Amino acid sequence: MAVPVSTNTPILRVGLAGLGTVGSAVWKRLTSQKDLLQQRTGTEIRVDQVAVRNPKRAKEIGVPENLTTADWRTLVANPDLEVVVELIGGTTDAFELIKTSLQNGKHVITANKALLAEHGAELFATALKNQRHLLFEASVAGGIPIIRALREGLVANRILSIHGIINGTCNYILTRMNEAGLEFKDALAEAKEKGYAEADDSLDVDGHDTAHKAAVLAALAYGFWVPQGELYTEGLRAVEKQDIVYARKLGYGLKLLAIIKTDSDGAVEVRVHPTLIPQSNVLASVSGVFNAVLVRGDVVGDTLYYGRGAGGDPTASAVVSDLAQIAAHFPQEQKARNVGHEALHSRLKTMDEIVSRYYLRLLVVDRPGVLADVARVLASRQIGISSVIQPEAHAGETTPLILMLHDAPESQLKAAISEISTIGAVKAPPVHLRVEDFE
Amino acid sequence: MAVPVSTNTPILRVGLAGLGTVGSAVWKRLTSQKDLLQQRTGTEIRVDQVAVRNPKRAKEIGVPENLTTADWRTLVANPDLEVVVELIGGTTDAFELIKTSLQNGKHVITANKALLAEHGAELFATALKNQRHLLFEASVAGGIPIIRALREGLVANRILSIHGIINGTCNYILTRMNEAGLEFKDALAEAKEKGYAEADDSLDVDGHDTAHKAAVLAALAYGFWVPQGELYTEGLRAVEKQDIVYARKLGYGLKLLAIIKTDSDGAVEVRVHPTLIPQSNVLASVSGVFNAVLVRGDVVGDTLYYGRGAGGDPTASAVVSDLAQIAAHFPQEQKARNVGHEALHSRLKTMDEIVSRYYLRLLVVDRPGVLADVARVLASRQIGISSVIQPEAHAGETTPLILMLHDAPESQLKAAISEISTIGAVKAPPVHLRVEDFE
Repeated sequence: MAVPVSTNTPILRVGLAGLGTVGSAVWKRLTSQKDLLQQRTGTEIRVDQVAVRNPKRAKEIGVPENLTTADWRTLVANPDLEVVVELIGGTTDAFELIKTSLQNGKHVITANKALLAEHGAELFATALKNQRHLLFEASVAGGIPIIRALREGLVANRILSIHGIINGTCNYILTRMNEAGLEFKDALAEAKEKGYAEADDSLDVDGHDTAHKAAVLAALAYGFWVPQGELYTEGLRAVEKQDIVYARKLGYGLKLLAIIKTDSDGAVEVRVHPTLIPQSNVLASVSGVFNAVLVRGDVVGDTLYYGRGAGGDPTASAVVSDLAQIAAHFPQEQKARNVGHEALHSRLKTMDEIVSRYYLRLLVVDRPGVLADVARVLASRQIGISSVIQPEAHAGETTPLILMLHDAPESQLKAAISEISTIGAVKAPPVHLRVEDFE
Repeated sequence: MAVPVSTNTPILRVGLAGLGTVGSAVWKRLTSQKDLLQQRTGTEIRVDQVAVRNPKRAKEIGVPENLTTADWRTLVANPDLEVVVELIGGTTDAFELIKTSLQNGKHVITANKALLAEHGAELFATALKNQRHLLFEASVAGGIPIIRALREGLVANRILSIHGIINGTCNYILTRMNEAGLEFKDALAEAKEKGYAEADDSLDVDGHDTAHKAAVLAALAYGFWVPQGELYTEGLRAVEKQDIVYARKLGYGLKLLAIIKTDSDGAVEVRVHPTLIPQSNVLASVSGVFNAVLVRGDVVGDTLYYGRGAGGDPTASAVVSDLAQIAAHFPQEQKARNVGHEALHSRLKTMDEIVSRYYLRLLVVDRPGVLADVARVLASRQIGISSVIQPEAHAGETTPLILMLHDAPESQLKAAISEISTIGAVKAPPVHLRVEDFE
């Protein structure tokens, strides 16, 4: 239905920087949902200026020429704009764009997790100092409103842990390795064919994108920014089809998880790695390009948020929700907030300190005494074995030997693995994967 | 960490009505999380008065005697209170309490879905007229922030459909029927033993509680309140263990769903009934007392929200999040909002109009020609058959005959069932269950 023209409707003037996949979806949705948004927020959200390097792109999408500028600096300097939406990506121009916009008194909305992971502390300090909002719903898990859930829906909770499947490319690859029995490189090739993976696959496949998002979630939960260099990040390249098969036999699924948690001492773990999770856990049923985030709060218990984590439209849904939040209060203003409210915790555990159960895969010569040798090393480090799978082989041939290990500090496991590698019957570097039990 | 005493911290004065399971959990959490909430909202949330019929209860929970009153009317009349939290339940006193509080200029927070389903339209009109908030995050799906997701996280979306598992008692019963092979009455008895079902089981088991929550979700999505008398509500009593077994054979799980959706004409369906859903759908993996709500938006696609839907602490988490929302803006105020922003749609489809696939279970005498007779009736109504299961039986014995039917209007199915009932070989009233495919 048409919105009645009213001279009383406030107008929120927005500058849009970038017309890539997400930027053009934001433009499109601000147009297609214009009436709906005005009804829901009581404010007209009007894009007043669009910064785009290539004027052809603006034309293709239907952005009127008189709204465009080739230079984002023009946007940042435009005194009429209340809000700047940063969708140019990268961490150099985008950093300057956001910082200067905040200093110029504009609210900023961004989807740029790489930038937040690198410069979040400085940017939020700038936002607070200038009492402007820096909103970032689209930076983690696309259209799933996980940032709002953590900041508002779960505000009554201390966050005990977050486990996230937050990279759709990796989840697609693992799903295909599991369901179609593909090896990693074939599943990756298929993901590229389908447009789920970029030609330059390292950002996704080596876990960096997941690590950027993990840093944002950790800041929300615990109020401090983990330097990327201190955030343990392990991608999918070492995962083999056989690991998924053995994990399934043991009752587990394999997912690339971002794990963020604290213990009673108040120290925080933040890590990204392929992880075995019980088949019965709801995260194990998240397949294909879908994302999901499982949050454990001290009051509410476990809640989970699931949906599409990437793509123009889902990400635009999140960007527009941030715009609507500002619009719903406009021209009044909310108090500006820091990302995690306050530093609740500030000590990050090293990987050596973390305690986990482990899956260990060895390639061994099948001869009597090998398991005893391995078990002796583990026992000497106080690491218990909970189950063993040894596929049948002929004497003298090499065969995988799979061990599920009880809780052990990572430092002890590493030492045990070094020693196991020296056993003569062990024929390849041992592979270990961590297990999460959600207890 | 201690919050520094500041004479500048605003104080939000709250009246708490009711100290049952939820009320006492809210009291406890406002105490245990007091510093956290003050840090996060910049406001002290202070319970200034508690209405409780039994003073012993207040003592047990540790509410100071000088804060209590036996009469909720005292609370409603207290000019110092900014917010009243209604947790007394029922639809008579609670209605008067909320309406009078709003008229007296107080914001109101409630978990009372039965009351909203019955009097939502009038109460929200009162709230809007008095420019006060009426918040209700705890009314649907306990601690899962689904109301906030619909109003804020998905604000950029027209809601195409909502499918909810929003009664933990029913989901527990269906889970036990599935996993342990129990019949309905045995699973219900077990749920009562475990404290998951009330002695008076009708509210849960006959679908009324689910229907109350469906009305709230429908109001959020489409801006109008469906009268409970027009909301098709079918509970679990007719579901037999064998239906779950046959559904599984056909690749489906059985859940009690609230279904809310619209089509391109803009008419709305709201219904509650046991429903077959594909095993591959993420809702099928929601087991035990957990709740989940799957929302389809026109921009974001499908998102799902999962967690504990009942219990003192999860519900308190939601109540406190509403308090924090008011506190975060206090002493400034947000614009008050109607529940669904505006009436987007206002025509409710009758059940005769809805179109669904169906599961049909007949008890038939095993003799040649029975399937042909049944198929002829269905064909005469243009209802196609997609699969048939007929367990082996000896000639002349009765045996179940299971048919999966293609899309048909409910009116046609009902007519077909009437006619099938008159076939001589059909020995019991046919059982039909609806199927949702999430396409």
